[in-house]
Amino acid sequence: MEKLLKEQINFIIEIDKLKTIERKTKIIHGSRLENDAEHTWHLAMMALVLHQHSNRYIDLLKVLKMLLIHDLVEIDAGDTFAYDTAGHNDKFERELQAAQRLFGMLPPEQEEEFMNLWLEFERKETDEAKFASSLDRLQPLIHNHLNQGDTWQKYRITSEQVINRNQEIGNGSRALWEVAQSIIDSSIEQGILAKS
Amino acid sequence: MEKLLKEQINFIIEIDKLKTIERKTKIIHGSRLENDAEHTWHLAMMALVLHQHSNRYIDLLKVLKMLLIHDLVEIDAGDTFAYDTAGHNDKFERELQAAQRLFGMLPPEQEEEFMNLWLEFERKETDEAKFASSLDRLQPLIHNHLNQGDTWQKYRITSEQVINRNQEIGNGSRALWEVAQSIIDSSIEQGILAKS
Repeated sequence: MEKLLKEQINFIIEIDKLKTIERKTKIIHGSRLENDAEHTWHLAMMALVLHQHSNRYIDLLKVLKMLLIHDLVEIDAGDTFAYDTAGHNDKFERELQAAQRLFGMLPPEQEEEFMNLWLEFERKETDEAKFASSLDRLQPLIHNHLNQGDTWQKYRITSEQVINRNQEIGNGSRALWEVAQSIIDSSIEQGILAKS
Repeated sequence: MEKLLKEQINFIIEIDKLKTIERKTKIIHGSRLENDAEHTWHLAMMALVLHQHSNRYIDLLKVLKMLLIHDLVEIDAGDTFAYDTAGHNDKFERELQAAQRLFGMLPPEQEEEFMNLWLEFERKETDEAKFASSLDRLQPLIHNHLNQGDTWQKYRITSEQVINRNQEIGNGSRALWEVAQSIIDSSIEQGILAKS
């Protein structure tokens, strides 16, 4: 097998590990925790279905690429819980190292492409990154709402924390931030999210 | 929430079920069976990494869309094992019904787009469908090879069956069919795939 193809296949094998990285959120139709690979597929589907609700015109292919690779760094760095303030202090450093190791397995052109896509997602400056990031926030909100506030209750998360973390959904899509707000309101009403 | 957005969010919630559909193949880094959502993410990553090896120029966005939705029908129709001849007799009919129910949850334009993408994938006539289908065959081959032929042995699958099923990988990518052949040869040599 030529060297380039061998490197690519080895990368494909290595990233299978994403299926073993557990998140804090449960799947909707079942009682187990979701893993990063499933979560990523779900986000890519959300991009396919919801891209018309982006505030600005976006390149859907770029959004999909960003989403597909955005959590790969968690293979080495693990899942940092959304509301873990301490864990977020060195999150970028840990994830950058992971990105260097993982994307470094690929031929140089792809290494550069994937590193740039990952950095673009992390920086949330472009329209594509803002929209992709909105989906990454909205998805667990929907899950927690339909799972009777499971994660919120387990970690004693209040409505203020949920609003503070999720209001940036509006940067990518005002329409989806409205959806998120109605989910938050309804969760407070149902008593599954504690009002701050 | 406007009707269109409500329909889209309900679809996003419904397809979470793909995470509960088990395949016959185990994940590589772990001892449990893979589910359809993880499998789909892995295929999308393979498309991102390997698209240069397609025999013909392909529209990567279309390939990604096709792959992301190709197994959704299994939410209703279940996973039909690759080597289950009887199960394949009514597979298309069962899956078509599932496609109609699931895609029918979406606004008309998206329903039509998703139905057409799914049918295109199933028919394997376009260059995009051929390449996407090649990845769908190659992925479990890599998994079974690295899992000591687990599925092959459990279901007494022989090399002839594996070759017959997988040789169409060459229709999408001759380079990937070469990879597949070397995996099959090495599996026979290692005694984890029975020679016919």
